[in-house]
Amino acid sequence: MLVAKESELRGKYDIEWKITGVASRRIGWVADPNGLDPQSILNHQWPEAPAWKKCQNVRQWLAYADPSVFFEISSLERRTGQPAIDHIKAALESGAHAVSANKGPVVHAYRELRDLARSKGLKFLFESTVMDGTPIFSMFPHSLPAVELRGFRGLLNSTSNVVLTEMEKGLSFDEAVKKAQEIGVAETDPSDDLDGWDAAVKVAALAIVLMDEPLRLDQVDRTGIRALTPQQVRAARAAGMRYKLICRAERTADGVRASVRPEQLPMTDPFALLEGTTSAIRFDLDVFGLSIIEHKPGVIATAYGLLADFIRAVK
Amino acid sequence: MLVAKESELRGKYDIEWKITGVASRRIGWVADPNGLDPQSILNHQWPEAPAWKKCQNVRQWLAYADPSVFFEISSLERRTGQPAIDHIKAALESGAHAVSANKGPVVHAYRELRDLARSKGLKFLFESTVMDGTPIFSMFPHSLPAVELRGFRGLLNSTSNVVLTEMEKGLSFDEAVKKAQEIGVAETDPSDDLDGWDAAVKVAALAIVLMDEPLRLDQVDRTGIRALTPQQVRAARAAGMRYKLICRAERTADGVRASVRPEQLPMTDPFALLEGTTSAIRFDLDVFGLSIIEHKPGVIATAYGLLADFIRAVK
Repeated sequence: MLVAKESELRGKYDIEWKITGVASRRIGWVADPNGLDPQSILNHQWPEAPAWKKCQNVRQWLAYADPSVFFEISSLERRTGQPAIDHIKAALESGAHAVSANKGPVVHAYRELRDLARSKGLKFLFESTVMDGTPIFSMFPHSLPAVELRGFRGLLNSTSNVVLTEMEKGLSFDEAVKKAQEIGVAETDPSDDLDGWDAAVKVAALAIVLMDEPLRLDQVDRTGIRALTPQQVRAARAAGMRYKLICRAERTADGVRASVRPEQLPMTDPFALLEGTTSAIRFDLDVFGLSIIEHKPGVIATAYGLLADFIRAVK
Repeated sequence: MLVAKESELRGKYDIEWKITGVASRRIGWVADPNGLDPQSILNHQWPEAPAWKKCQNVRQWLAYADPSVFFEISSLERRTGQPAIDHIKAALESGAHAVSANKGPVVHAYRELRDLARSKGLKFLFESTVMDGTPIFSMFPHSLPAVELRGFRGLLNSTSNVVLTEMEKGLSFDEAVKKAQEIGVAETDPSDDLDGWDAAVKVAALAIVLMDEPLRLDQVDRTGIRALTPQQVRAARAAGMRYKLICRAERTADGVRASVRPEQLPMTDPFALLEGTTSAIRFDLDVFGLSIIEHKPGVIATAYGLLADFIRAVK
């Protein structure tokens, strides 16, 4: 995405960039303050040492790579949000903006990371964590100032959506999961999706950031789609309804109540028509209702969210 | 809206305000640099002179009221955009930010007003012109940087939407128009809505601003809903389809092609489900498809768009 948008970044935003470090479980902490070649990285081709150096840990790596922006895109660890939280802290403390596509740090350490970033005059941004690059977290402060967000309803988990659609078409639960894996939507272990954890983490992230509510993940009332039988799913369809895994949050006198559970929607509900990786959210504001639908995103949509945060961080 | 959000404006945004001038065809150019009482204005009660002064024209009024922000909310004059354009120019030249809910100045003088505002270090904002306060014009530069907007499809005229729904239910065209007037959606002379002018002006405004295309209103291929008979509308419904007045714009090798015309949508299209004052737009971006739906807005939604622009202008 950085390469694809390079000329626009330079021409329209006056942004030049180089990649001074890359790290993953497989390659370790690789850094070169003079810049690594993006095309070589994309092709998994590494130049001969000593053009680059392998560091021992995140702090050594940050010190050597000296980034102005740090991208955190490791997988979700839903229980603790680690080690992503520690990595983001280290990056902010080293003077780099932090851009994350990982929901864990938002759910487990939003206020701490936000305040740390502020105290350093830096940004902690995470647009890609919910609905990829679709404007959600960046939209509220700028485009919806002074609104009261009373609640929201979302269709936010692609795997569940694909599995339910395939069950409607006649597949068993296991066959439907296999289909979702084959088309690249579901992971090898899709438990977090099927048990509603992915959706619950998204609800919590939205409530914590947009509703300023210190919601814990275990406070989200969560039911996944495992208990639904193909018979139930097809009976609903025959009756003009459709099961969807629906996320909800609502502000009440006792704080925000949040849930994730399968619901039967009538075919007159726009959410009932959404299939595949399409996701959607409806915000209940004091001034109007606002729905946002992201149609059939691929991995490029997540990458775009990181790029958009990058532009917002450095401009 | 200013009164309703007063404590939030002060507490969250550190914005204090007073109304130093109000003008309309009926009351003339009323100004008081010490501030007019908002509650009296809402009640159409005017204090005794000489607490306030009636000016002769917009420049005298601006000079006496000395505003930092000017709100332009006169009715659309679709042929020339006047006198709103001249009023906005005068306001910008006097040193005030200009916030407009009127599409005319955007369609007839966008670049001139944008450049004038820039040259003065001021803002010319107009979020309320399309879909009220729903994030559109404010969303693109901030939340969708570096995207390529290839085209869009919108359902943007409430009157047509209500009239078509009422015709589906069995009313004649004239009865349906009367119904739309009774519920406060259609104006006394609804021609601009029924002939597709309102929708065409919105398409032009979106293409001019978001696609950077100097589209003229007469370049929008425009068909309204007058030619549709109740028989056609009901036959479509019986066949599982629904007529909606659809706006389209698409970037082609020869520039942007734009149209407004009634189209039959299948009931599997989320736009087919939208009724009443609900409006929607789907943007075709290079990174994903993005739909935005504004559910059942009232006049407060337009007022909110002006308030949001006000906050963006002064912060």
